[in-house]
Amino acid sequence: MKLIIANKTYSSWSLRAWLMLKASGHTFEEICILLRQPDTHSQILRWSPSGKVPCLIDSGIAVWDSLAIAEYLAEESPPLWPLDGAARAIARSVSAEMHSGFQALRNQMPMNLRRAAPLASHSPELAADIRRIEQIWNESRAQHGSHGRFLFGSYSIADMMFAPVCFRFDSYDVRLHGAAQDYLQTMLAHPHMQEWKEAAADETSVIPDYDV
Amino acid sequence: MKLIIANKTYSSWSLRAWLMLKASGHTFEEICILLRQPDTHSQILRWSPSGKVPCLIDSGIAVWDSLAIAEYLAEESPPLWPLDGAARAIARSVSAEMHSGFQALRNQMPMNLRRAAPLASHSPELAADIRRIEQIWNESRAQHGSHGRFLFGSYSIADMMFAPVCFRFDSYDVRLHGAAQDYLQTMLAHPHMQEWKEAAADETSVIPDYDV
Repeated sequence: MKLIIANKTYSSWSLRAWLMLKASGHTFEEICILLRQPDTHSQILRWSPSGKVPCLIDSGIAVWDSLAIAEYLAEESPPLWPLDGAARAIARSVSAEMHSGFQALRNQMPMNLRRAAPLASHSPELAADIRRIEQIWNESRAQHGSHGRFLFGSYSIADMMFAPVCFRFDSYDVRLHGAAQDYLQTMLAHPHMQEWKEAAADETSVIPDYDV
Repeated sequence: MKLIIANKTYSSWSLRAWLMLKASGHTFEEICILLRQPDTHSQILRWSPSGKVPCLIDSGIAVWDSLAIAEYLAEESPPLWPLDGAARAIARSVSAEMHSGFQALRNQMPMNLRRAAPLASHSPELAADIRRIEQIWNESRAQHGSHGRFLFGSYSIADMMFAPVCFRFDSYDVRLHGAAQDYLQTMLAHPHMQEWKEAAADETSVIPDYDV
């Protein structure tokens, strides 16, 4: 398997798929295409029909978009979704909500693993996004997380979908209430998150104010 | 089962989940919450934790977001995804690409079943979105659609994810090249699409320039 990703410092979408592959137990080759280069788009299009990362190449098939990669891996791998049907339905709901929403958070609080400073202020839309994420984390932990410290007990795709938010909340020094704060620390301490962060620190390509 | 949706004239996200439920064969009750009313948000929140439609209620469990509803129904229902694994991976890829992308199309060409007029012009971003959708439709039909007139042969979740785009292309008189034009007509003629459109025509609540 090959996984096509972009700069680990900035590419939040890449992080999700990379965590899924790590959790699946597959060995895979990483192909990193640097953002904001003259040939970035054409380089990505060599692999990914959508022109976007991440893209998984397996046996000649391209599977693109983090949620499609999630379901592809979940069909064959150790339980990447919760085993309980009701918990799995909610895990998919919060994952899909993250996948298509939270525009203010994406735009105003871009993932940047080199950053360690709060924003001067939060817009009402950003504050609402943060509150909703805090609510999802608190409710998931309370209702489904009794068998562990992750959203649905064991580490699952839902956690991986929120992983970039965890890095953002750390970079921008966002403080949370209740179990959400413990969850944030749990995620930041996960060995795969640490491995990604260390690899990002070794990157030399810096893009000021990158907004992905 | 209950499905919480909004105005059929405007709510593109509602359409997708409604088509999935119709295809699943389940009987279900529709609860329609009108957009742009003083209590719209609180009415939706009574059912849907995200505050957004669609939301499926089944045995006391709320499942929200169209893609989560898709996977929930696909676990138990007749084949809503293609049976072939490779085709299923691509169907999920194009569905997820639709789910999180195409912002220019969403913003500049909102679904409005009362409209029948082209835009005065297409921005470069909108033109790129239309070209990419045309490419997805042509390639899916060519590579996976040999057993029928839908994207992956038989009618699947991928078609349902693109259903609002079909209504948009019809309303805004967008002409396509190759098999994509035949696919558009196939979708518009589908009995479930016709049923939704007729119900929309009976709605009396009109929202000028609604941008969902």
